[in-house]
Amino acid sequence: MDFPSKLIEEAVNQVSKLPGIGKKTALRLVLHLVKEKPESTFALTEALASLRANIKFCTKCHNISDAGTCSICQSHRRDRSIICVVEDTKDVMAIENTAQYNGLYHVLGGVISPINGIGPSELKIESLVTRITQNAEETKEVILALSPTMEGDTTSFYIHKKIKELPVKISVISRGVPIGGDLEYADEITLGRSISGRTLFS
Amino acid sequence: MDFPSKLIEEAVNQVSKLPGIGKKTALRLVLHLVKEKPESTFALTEALASLRANIKFCTKCHNISDAGTCSICQSHRRDRSIICVVEDTKDVMAIENTAQYNGLYHVLGGVISPINGIGPSELKIESLVTRITQNAEETKEVILALSPTMEGDTTSFYIHKKIKELPVKISVISRGVPIGGDLEYADEITLGRSISGRTLFS
Repeated sequence: MDFPSKLIEEAVNQVSKLPGIGKKTALRLVLHLVKEKPESTFALTEALASLRANIKFCTKCHNISDAGTCSICQSHRRDRSIICVVEDTKDVMAIENTAQYNGLYHVLGGVISPINGIGPSELKIESLVTRITQNAEETKEVILALSPTMEGDTTSFYIHKKIKELPVKISVISRGVPIGGDLEYADEITLGRSISGRTLFS
Repeated sequence: MDFPSKLIEEAVNQVSKLPGIGKKTALRLVLHLVKEKPESTFALTEALASLRANIKFCTKCHNISDAGTCSICQSHRRDRSIICVVEDTKDVMAIENTAQYNGLYHVLGGVISPINGIGPSELKIESLVTRITQNAEETKEVILALSPTMEGDTTSFYIHKKIKELPVKISVISRGVPIGGDLEYADEITLGRSISGRTLFS
C-alpha cells in the first residue's frame, strides 16, 4: 500500500497490529478518525492510554479490577467454597452473564500454548495452588472452565495434575451439543462426546 | 455488559464508536492491549493522536498530505489536463494501485447524503468549480469516479449540473459486470446496465 502521508502510514501500522484487523480495515478506521472531530480521537487515545497505565488486577483472583481486590472476591454474597478457573476476563463476564454461578473465580491470564511461547509459568497456576492450599478449610471445589480446545484441554490436564492431591473436588464444565443448535449441524466430535457423556434424563 | 473495571468500560465505549466495531469486538481488542506490553498501547495512542493533531490536506486536491501540496499535485510527470473526482483518500489509493491513471485528483471528502446530514456545502464541490475555472486553459477533462450508489450518483448529478457549462469534457467511470465475476452471480441491475451500456468489441 502506498500511503499519501507518513502519519497515516504509522497509524495504519499500529492499528493493524490489533488482532483480527488487517491493513484495509485499519485504513478505514484511521480515515474515519481523520473525518471526525479531533476530540473523538483524543477521547479514544486518552481512554486507551489511561486504561493501560492504570489497569489493576485483583490480588486474589487476578481478574481486572479497579481496586486491589475485585468486587467478586470482596462480596459476602458469593459462595467462597467454589473456585471457577477461567482463561481471561471475557470468560468471567460470560459466566457472570449466565447468572448460573455464584462462586469465586481464578483468572489464569491465558492457556498453555507452546506455539505462542506460553508455558505454565506464564500463567497464574502456581498462584491457584497456593490459593487452594492456604484456603484449604474454605475451598471445596475447583471448576475447570477452559475452552474445549487443544490448548484449553492441555491446561486443564496440567492443573488437574497439580491439584489432584489437594483435598478439593475437581470438576469440568460439560461438553455437548449447544442448546438451540440443530443436531445435524453439530460436528462429529461434539456429537460423539455428547453421546458418550450422556446423563440421566431428569 | 457488566464490566469489571471503569477503565475497561470507558475504553470499550470509545473503541466501539469506530465504524464496524461492536461492544464484543471492542472488548476483545481492549483486553488484547491489556495483555500486551504497555508500550504497544502507547505506540498506538501516540500514532493516532499525532495523526489527528498534525494531519494536513493538500490545498489543491484536498487529499491527505504531509506537505501543503500533495506529491501528486506537485509531480511534473502527471497529466495536468485531467481531474478525477473521488470521494476520499481510500479511492485515490485504490485508483493509484491500478496504475491506469496518470492525471490529477480532486477529493470531495464524502458524498451528498441527506440521511447523514451531508449536503453539497460540506464537500469540496465549490473548490472543484473554482479549480476548473482558474485552470481553464489546462483542464480538459473531469472524470467522475464516485461509487455507483444512490449517494454517489446524486453527487455526480449535482457536480455535473454545476460544471456542465464550463469548457471541459465530463466523463464517468464505466459500470458493468466486475472482471473475474461469474455472470450468473451479477445482480439484475448491474447486468442490465452492462447490456444497455455495451461497447464495441475490440
